[in-house]
Amino acid sequence: MSRTISEIASFLGLRFQGDGDRKVDKVSSWEAADASSLIYIESREVAAQFPQTVQAACAIVLPESAPAGISAIFSERPKLDFARAASLLQPRPSSAGMRHPSAVISASAEIDKSVDVGPLVTVRAGARIRRGCILHEGVVIGEGCVLGEECVLYPSVILYPQVEVGNRAILHAGVVVGSDGFGYVFDGDAYIKFPQVGTVVIEDDVEIGANSTIDRGSLGVTRIGAGAKIDNLVQVAHNVQIGKGVVIAAQTGVSGSTIIEEYAVIGGQVGFGDHAHVQKGVVIGSKAGVLPGKIVRSGETYWGIPVRPLSEFKRLNALFGRLPQMKEEISKLKEQVALLQAALQKFESK
Amino acid sequence: MSRTISEIASFLGLRFQGDGDRKVDKVSSWEAADASSLIYIESREVAAQFPQTVQAACAIVLPESAPAGISAIFSERPKLDFARAASLLQPRPSSAGMRHPSAVISASAEIDKSVDVGPLVTVRAGARIRRGCILHEGVVIGEGCVLGEECVLYPSVILYPQVEVGNRAILHAGVVVGSDGFGYVFDGDAYIKFPQVGTVVIEDDVEIGANSTIDRGSLGVTRIGAGAKIDNLVQVAHNVQIGKGVVIAAQTGVSGSTIIEEYAVIGGQVGFGDHAHVQKGVVIGSKAGVLPGKIVRSGETYWGIPVRPLSEFKRLNALFGRLPQMKEEISKLKEQVALLQAALQKFESK
Amino acid sequence: MSRTISEIASFLGLRFQGDGDRKVDKVSSWEAADASSLIYIESREVAAQFPQTVQAACAIVLPESAPAGISAIFSERPKLDFARAASLLQPRPSSAGMRHPSAVISASAEIDKSVDVGPLVTVRAGARIRRGCILHEGVVIGEGCVLGEECVLYPSVILYPQVEVGNRAILHAGVVVGSDGFGYVFDGDAYIKFPQVGTVVIEDDVEIGANSTIDRGSLGVTRIGAGAKIDNLVQVAHNVQIGKGVVIAAQTGVSGSTIIEEYAVIGGQVGFGDHAHVQKGVVIGSKAGVLPGKIVRSGETYWGIPVRPLSEFKRLNALFGRLPQMKEEISKLKEQVALLQAALQKFESK
Repeated sequence: MSRTISEIASFLGLRFQGDGDRKVDKVSSWEAADASSLIYIESREVAAQFPQTVQAACAIVLPESAPAGISAIFSERPKLDFARAASLLQPRPSSAGMRHPSAVISASAEIDKSVDVGPLVTVRAGARIRRGCILHEGVVIGEGCVLGEECVLYPSVILYPQVEVGNRAILHAGVVVGSDGFGYVFDGDAYIKFPQVGTVVIEDDVEIGANSTIDRGSLGVTRIGAGAKIDNLVQVAHNVQIGKGVVIAAQTGVSGSTIIEEYAVIGGQVGFGDHAHVQKGVVIGSKAGVLPGKIVRSGETYWGIPVRPLSEFKRLNALFGRLPQMKEEISKLKEQVALLQAALQKFESK
Repeated sequence: MSRTISEIASFLGLRFQGDGDRKVDKVSSWEAADASSLIYIESREVAAQFPQTVQAACAIVLPESAPAGISAIFSERPKLDFARAASLLQPRPSSAGMRHPSAVISASAEIDKSVDVGPLVTVRAGARIRRGCILHEGVVIGEGCVLGEECVLYPSVILYPQVEVGNRAILHAGVVVGSDGFGYVFDGDAYIKFPQVGTVVIEDDVEIGANSTIDRGSLGVTRIGAGAKIDNLVQVAHNVQIGKGVVIAAQTGVSGSTIIEEYAVIGGQVGFGDHAHVQKGVVIGSKAGVLPGKIVRSGETYWGIPVRPLSEFKRLNALFGRLPQMKEEISKLKEQVALLQAALQKFESK
Repeated sequence: MSRTISEIASFLGLRFQGDGDRKVDKVSSWEAADASSLIYIESREVAAQFPQTVQAACAIVLPESAPAGISAIFSERPKLDFARAASLLQPRPSSAGMRHPSAVISASAEIDKSVDVGPLVTVRAGARIRRGCILHEGVVIGEGCVLGEECVLYPSVILYPQVEVGNRAILHAGVVVGSDGFGYVFDGDAYIKFPQVGTVVIEDDVEIGANSTIDRGSLGVTRIGAGAKIDNLVQVAHNVQIGKGVVIAAQTGVSGSTIIEEYAVIGGQVGFGDHAHVQKGVVIGSKAGVLPGKIVRSGETYWGIPVRPLSEFKRLNALFGRLPQMKEEISKLKEQVALLQAALQKFESK
């Protein structure tokens, strides 16, 4: 969608310099920019040495740091305002009320007339789908599921029955929500399935990455809080509670009943034992491991298996690397002590 | 399905007290229970202090520990009997012989008339599907696959050709069985694909979690033993042998030709090198790593990368945390030894 | 496909002994071989003690090491030539120009007439699919995607719009290519989506395992180099560059903008922080962790979290296991030093 520089600046509530009527129609990296691109420059250093060959229509830059010859919008946070401008130039796709004839839709499903139902989608009995949703190829909406407004479900997203999704959720291809949790009771010979009859609630503005899996509660609810962002191939087990604005990177796994409070930031390939409790705003580094039942307290960054505060982890890791020297020092001390013992014995025997 | 308390007690072979004719129609957590719920209470302590506001129809409790005012069934293992009761109240879905017109079914497939074939399912040539199976949306049954009785395949389960599945298997959404194993021979310039022409056998009563992947044997068979339970996003490579009753938690990966003997219990995010051998009943903690070719012997719980017996792991981990003190002690010893050396030298020079 | 021993030897450019006219129709393990099987024997030791009961038609063996009674083809690298022979006996499936009536194909897609479009496939506007491709059930080809010649896409492979795939790619079931990268800017209250409007380029002869995910570039390109082989459940983030002939085992995750140069070999469950740089030919062991921005230099094998050269890792790991002895030695030294101090004091007080 084409916009003028002054329209973009006005949308962002920011000042600009240069040709306000010039048209911009996309966001680009500066390496790939052409004469209709919006770019951003994050630092004054980069702006000062900016290649004159770059052909962008406009750059979002720190105040008064525009490279020569490029129209500029001034922002204290260029990357943030670039992301905002992108939502204007390349807005989320909007639905047009399409119903593909190959879709299999239950007569008892309630689907707003604005919703796009793509090819080979299934919507089962009692499902309710609100205004502006887009269901791509092969999506399955189970019995009684509810989708809020303007959700986008990419191909092959599977919702088991009774899953509730809030407004503006984005579920990427292959996401599974509401599968049975992993719970059994051993009877001495075989594992008996513990009932997995709870539900999943995904609140507003959640995004979940490709092929991630979110299990339903066993008897209760698995909840993903508003604005949480979950990367690809993440596992969220039954009864987990993910707070508002939590970020979880790829391939992390969260075991049953664990609580991750709001605005925690979790790296990739992290593992949480069951019934752990991560407090508000905690940061956990990639590949870390949190033991079952562990309380991870606010105010720190954590690393390692099991997790420790980062400063402690760094110190221990450095000492781990110095183990050969420690061994050496101990050997030398043993020699010195043996010499001292011998010398003393000589004295004593005099 | 509605049942009376006396019917449930009789099914479980247990005593009850209270109103045997009262109807129960679901299992619930006690927090969410209503007047038609069955709940369970695992300990006498919880039962003794049980909130009087809870409205369950019936509780399964340890003998003679019924909270006041609730009908009770007495069990030495309340959680196990609760799980059994759930299979009575909320039984597995049963098939009704449905053939959705959108399904694509080969004329040479043999499908029992009781089987449900859901929307947009494909069943290829020569597949055989026995009594009571349910195939959800988008399932693909490859050429020559065999499904035993009463299997449930959730949406988008993909079986490559020639996969055999036993009775009562549950495969969750997005599971892939029979994909090519990861085997190549380097010719000095490129990787030449090693043939992946074996099969997969999944025995009776196996459950596999969402988006897990089970590769076919290269020349032989990948086997998942009877009653094994596999969580979400687990990888099982070519020629792996998983024994009877093995439990594997989410995101664990098992490399080629590894053997995991019966009743082993494997945590989440564990990694097994190829040709490892885990003996019967071994327990391996989450995030552990087993080296290629390693034999992990029965009778222990293992942790760490590489795995060590838990007692040893705990001791080493504690000492790891004490590295700063060890460093401190070595420094102090060095000072003391230097003082001793100086003192001795003084003596000697007298 | 049936071939004579002399045809196979000729195809491989190798000598044989025995009955050149004998028919071979498949590759087998020697345990499962029958009278029409080709097998291979990797070492002279195994060949010398080979069970006389094995019924293969022909064995590929090291020169002059044929077991008695079996026709043999002589090779310096039996496993490699066995893999090559397999490509002759059990060649890749070839397409026949099938268009399944249930497929949903845009009028503006260009699909070579030789291509197989399976049941329930979707091909969107502007896609171009070249000679010999096979699209299995439920595959989705997004707007403007390009597939080179003879690609095989197994069921439920999802290509988001604008993905480019080279010749002879094999994408296994459930693979997602071109999903949005995981990028947000925090505005103090919520995470604002950073634009994910780049593309993915997959070069010739790439194979990607089941349920792996490859994100599109944010503003640039995510690239998988020619001949790279990627196992199941692997995550490749936005803007990653994977070089020619790189091998990546299952469940590894590569964070944004990381570069892995040609012929690197990466184990399973490895994690790469963002903007890391792995140089040509590096080998990284399973479960290793590479820190963000880290340069991993050519000429070494690396292990551990964070990665260290293998020799160093082994030494440190051995010392880690000896921590109890080190603690013991320190305690003993403390005792000895205390005794020495006491003895000296006695001298001094004389």
